[in-house]
Amino acid sequence: MTKPSVSYSKIKKVSNGGVLETTDLLAAEEPLEIRIGYGNANDRQQKNISVTMRTPGNDFELAIGFLFTEGIISGVNDISEIKYCTDANTIENQENIVRAELKESVSFDFKNLERIFYTTSSCGVCGKASIDAVKTVCRIDTEPGNLKVKKELIYTLPDLLRKHQNVFEHTGGLHACALFDAEGHLILSREDVGRHNALDKLIGACLALKQDQPGTFSFHNYILLLSGRASFELLQKSAMAGIKIVAAIGAPSSLAVETAQEFGITLIGFLRGESFNVYSGEERLV
Amino acid sequence: MTKPSVSYSKIKKVSNGGVLETTDLLAAEEPLEIRIGYGNANDRQQKNISVTMRTPGNDFELAIGFLFTEGIISGVNDISEIKYCTDANTIENQENIVRAELKESVSFDFKNLERIFYTTSSCGVCGKASIDAVKTVCRIDTEPGNLKVKKELIYTLPDLLRKHQNVFEHTGGLHACALFDAEGHLILSREDVGRHNALDKLIGACLALKQDQPGTFSFHNYILLLSGRASFELLQKSAMAGIKIVAAIGAPSSLAVETAQEFGITLIGFLRGESFNVYSGEERLV
Repeated sequence: MTKPSVSYSKIKKVSNGGVLETTDLLAAEEPLEIRIGYGNANDRQQKNISVTMRTPGNDFELAIGFLFTEGIISGVNDISEIKYCTDANTIENQENIVRAELKESVSFDFKNLERIFYTTSSCGVCGKASIDAVKTVCRIDTEPGNLKVKKELIYTLPDLLRKHQNVFEHTGGLHACALFDAEGHLILSREDVGRHNALDKLIGACLALKQDQPGTFSFHNYILLLSGRASFELLQKSAMAGIKIVAAIGAPSSLAVETAQEFGITLIGFLRGESFNVYSGEERLV
Repeated sequence: MTKPSVSYSKIKKVSNGGVLETTDLLAAEEPLEIRIGYGNANDRQQKNISVTMRTPGNDFELAIGFLFTEGIISGVNDISEIKYCTDANTIENQENIVRAELKESVSFDFKNLERIFYTTSSCGVCGKASIDAVKTVCRIDTEPGNLKVKKELIYTLPDLLRKHQNVFEHTGGLHACALFDAEGHLILSREDVGRHNALDKLIGACLALKQDQPGTFSFHNYILLLSGRASFELLQKSAMAGIKIVAAIGAPSSLAVETAQEFGITLIGFLRGESFNVYSGEERLV
């Protein structure tokens, strides 16, 4: 049984003064708790890492993506098993708790967890410290890579994403993101009520794609498209994955731009029709 | 010195193949740490409550609103003083840490804090548990109140909000929310890169308005308008404040609708032009 990503609601539609009783399709939102198991076989420990309000579906990808972009795992090879916890005592709780088993060889550092809250005393609390905190746990190579993309190709991406936004089309309630190759082919897209969850699902799905091979997904060869605005959190996750081009249909924040500049990411915003703004890394656009 | 809510960035504007160098105005995004001081005068304790990525400005309102909507305070009368922490050792850290001093008479219950992460073992992890958790700390009267509003008045609200969205107009990067009275007059509006922060700022500002009077702001007489989608978190905060009508320009999530129904809140979504959907509490619309 998989939880549905949408639910139905009886509504009144008010329009030009008239009222119509009808049914509306809603994007589902429920909490997901992410736990890890770690330590050696004789002494397994459990740690609750996060609770996020997400749209059910692709929960394992979400957990993998989250653990990866928070620097807790360096790839799916660090995980021996991932499953829903069955200690939940009611039907409503089922499939709302995911536990990822870290392999015995994987050391889990509690200090990395603190970064999730952007608050370690050595860092302080400011934009620069937030960026520095990402650098501390960032294991991805920071080579600029060879990805180059034609400006005209960028224009075409939003329409391709919209065609793939199945749930959004019906509910209007979801953020989406997608990875495209340098020729503009959509590789994978994911949706969620939380934009950070949509990106974690996408990154987790890409990592899982290569689960049977050594190493991780080559994010640096792909373009990330975001359906809305670009916040610090989304650029932080992109940096952790090694994504080199991020294009947002909406506006970026100041800290998103600073993070892109710091990590050598090409950041595009206000991508609408045949027009966009480049905030950093224009050398990848030809 | 107050931190700016916007910052400037040199960009390349790509349009129809041409490239123009120009300057863009960005919505500022920086972390804010919220701390409380509590206990009696001889033994004051400090607790870090939260770090949120916010747009600088109205930071004390944000802290007050957050502490209120999380059930840690029942109004501004619980706070004896609020200030920026001066233990920050760099200029970047300044004005990114707010400490609210709880009065000695205010008891601070660590258990309430757990609700912030929607994860107490007694609750479990599901939508229903999330709603129940809000009920546990909700101190607001759940009387339905007498607020009635004409449908035609609802149509007029988005335009009034847009006229007040100063920063958004320039950056396109902010969520906004506003309170209107039953005659459709805009009382107060607030903006932020985070939609939950915008609402906390608005609620905090309203509470502070009445700081010199006993009691708290009468939220149940006002209509809340949200510039985007309505998530669980926004309905949870509305319920905590006792707001009876919430209108969103975007879509609500399933859990937002359930929360509205549970707390007797009128929830309107897809408010565009002369049309909207009513998800619960239609009896307040005449």
